[in-house]
Amino acid sequence: MPLPPYGAARRPEPEILQALARARKLVPLVHCLTASVARELMANVVLALGGSPAMIAADEEIEQFVPLADALVINLGSLSSAGAQSMRRAAALASSLRKPWLFDPAAVGALSLRTELARDLLALRPDIVKGNASEILALAGEDGKGRCADATVEAELALEAAGRVAGRTGRVTMVTGATDYVTDGLRLMSVPGGHPLMSRVTGTGCALGAAAAVFLGAGLPLFRAAVTASAVFAFAGAKAGEEARGPGGFAAAFLDQLYLLGEGS
Amino acid sequence: MPLPPYGAARRPEPEILQALARARKLVPLVHCLTASVARELMANVVLALGGSPAMIAADEEIEQFVPLADALVINLGSLSSAGAQSMRRAAALASSLRKPWLFDPAAVGALSLRTELARDLLALRPDIVKGNASEILALAGEDGKGRCADATVEAELALEAAGRVAGRTGRVTMVTGATDYVTDGLRLMSVPGGHPLMSRVTGTGCALGAAAAVFLGAGLPLFRAAVTASAVFAFAGAKAGEEARGPGGFAAAFLDQLYLLGEGS
Amino acid sequence: MPLPPYGAARRPEPEILQALARARKLVPLVHCLTASVARELMANVVLALGGSPAMIAADEEIEQFVPLADALVINLGSLSSAGAQSMRRAAALASSLRKPWLFDPAAVGALSLRTELARDLLALRPDIVKGNASEILALAGEDGKGRCADATVEAELALEAAGRVAGRTGRVTMVTGATDYVTDGLRLMSVPGGHPLMSRVTGTGCALGAAAAVFLGAGLPLFRAAVTASAVFAFAGAKAGEEARGPGGFAAAFLDQLYLLGEGS
Repeated sequence: MPLPPYGAARRPEPEILQALARARKLVPLVHCLTASVARELMANVVLALGGSPAMIAADEEIEQFVPLADALVINLGSLSSAGAQSMRRAAALASSLRKPWLFDPAAVGALSLRTELARDLLALRPDIVKGNASEILALAGEDGKGRCADATVEAELALEAAGRVAGRTGRVTMVTGATDYVTDGLRLMSVPGGHPLMSRVTGTGCALGAAAAVFLGAGLPLFRAAVTASAVFAFAGAKAGEEARGPGGFAAAFLDQLYLLGEGS
Repeated sequence: MPLPPYGAARRPEPEILQALARARKLVPLVHCLTASVARELMANVVLALGGSPAMIAADEEIEQFVPLADALVINLGSLSSAGAQSMRRAAALASSLRKPWLFDPAAVGALSLRTELARDLLALRPDIVKGNASEILALAGEDGKGRCADATVEAELALEAAGRVAGRTGRVTMVTGATDYVTDGLRLMSVPGGHPLMSRVTGTGCALGAAAAVFLGAGLPLFRAAVTASAVFAFAGAKAGEEARGPGGFAAAFLDQLYLLGEGS
Repeated sequence: MPLPPYGAARRPEPEILQALARARKLVPLVHCLTASVARELMANVVLALGGSPAMIAADEEIEQFVPLADALVINLGSLSSAGAQSMRRAAALASSLRKPWLFDPAAVGALSLRTELARDLLALRPDIVKGNASEILALAGEDGKGRCADATVEAELALEAAGRVAGRTGRVTMVTGATDYVTDGLRLMSVPGGHPLMSRVTGTGCALGAAAAVFLGAGLPLFRAAVTASAVFAFAGAKAGEEARGPGGFAAAFLDQLYLLGEGS
């Protein structure tokens, strides 16, 4: 069932570059309800890809802001109970407005507050669910043995679970790892690439969700938005990894490469 | 009414360098109540300019901390209702103690919680109000058509509104854009410079407010503090933009250039 | 009573490299309850040293998460009253589970909320207490004249106070400054090195606490964990300082040097 790997070429496919050009033209407004530790990197990734980030988080502002945004990301990262309430409201509103939204069930599994919230948000049928293998297994009702931000399980072991999650939402699921996978329950596409230093910079996984939301906000179909985000990260990550000697230089080079992607090609 | 543009020279004016030297000697303590996404960059900008940042935010600590600080920044960025209460208390206290403070009405206009708060804070007559064109128009009671962090309006279209805001506070207003403007309702000064990559790094606008607060905290007159901050950002931004190929490298180079400004000159 | 300075050599001592190798093998899960401004740097320092950071902060999740982590950091940085409650719960639980934890009483002294909390947390006998001279003096009941993140007092003036704090917990106290000191009330070790640019990057002091927690989580004895963290920061800071011209480049180079430390030696 897996399609041939995507993005393994030395240069981005033309449709990736078209998607980037579209995002840069439309400047989608991406609303992120997310972990404090990842907020700055997520905003900078949205900006590097041509979008406009907004981190409006107060429960009182959700009702007015969700309709203004082009896409929404809900990431359970450093959840608070106030944050959980904003997230429930935002997800319900996005669903009812048919505003595209991505759900990142960070660290789901071991902790009841977020596991319960994740179940409720999943029932609202997010357009894209994105997680590492542990998170996707936990979401599918299996034990991912997650240690929070860690994926202690290979992505390949969560592909069936990803299919089940996609079946439940009727939409798209991404499993991240050394190779990323995107499935809608019927198709399964693999996106290899990237670089090991990506996992040494906090928030890169969260930022991939923000990247997918940029492409959702630019109007790409769900499956394409997810694959494009993974491919863009795979290319920029590989290039930045060639240049960097460690995670500090890598983080800067990665943003530069996202920004430069598609320039002059 | 506009004075000749400021800071357009290849080297900073002597009075800019004097202001920097003064800040580095006095090490003003700058208290920031601000957006979580911009907190780290703001703190690092304060440090690069020779100040000392503090992000004390708990309502219970405002009463004791505001008197200790040399200047205060209130930025509506990622507002919460708890944050709003701290901000009201801090602004009232700063005003009554005649402690200099800067108000950044981030994303004001579309969202009632912050629009109402902005009206109340404006009535406390902040020493400097700093915003992009959309925010200044919204603050002046006109429709800025803002999309939050985005300025979708040219700075030049908000100059009259800026004059009205300055008239209402009796103090100074800054409008940021490709060229920044500073007005006290009588004088209007333009500060060109900077670099387009500045708008591709989250929090640079917020950090300009922190920079102005460093100069307020160092005892500069209001108009001079605002112009100095814009000029310093314009110089450092232009230099960093010459070196950088993208936003990741730019952010690091910008902090370096702020830090180096005035060294060896 | 001071032992000969540690880490002054051109290359890390073999035991430092062994400790690093151990951390990289065991990948300790380090739970940080900490200031929002320092969260990203702390997470990235933990990752650069081979650990896995988690910033779980909701009071509802503390009970379930503390037992999963290998070490805990409690940093009073940008304290909120909700945060204070999570910290009390986490510290009590860590103590009762004999889970190693480090306490950073950031900005203690001038502000009652955190001064009272600090007293209570100290009574729970943290394994390591880490602070600048002002904070350690305040914790020992003397006036540190602190201006929050600033140490306006030389580390050397707080060594007696550090001994008293260590006497009270029966464990280890670190005093940070141009030279760091580690004491258990009997032994006192100095760790010179580092670079002045470290104090121009927000969160480096907080990140030293996270580094010590990595070594605690890897099972090192308390005194050794503290000395190793300071030595690692001293080496990486000195190397990064040789390369950097300002704080932006320094921050990236510092993470790179932490990551590279022990590679190829």
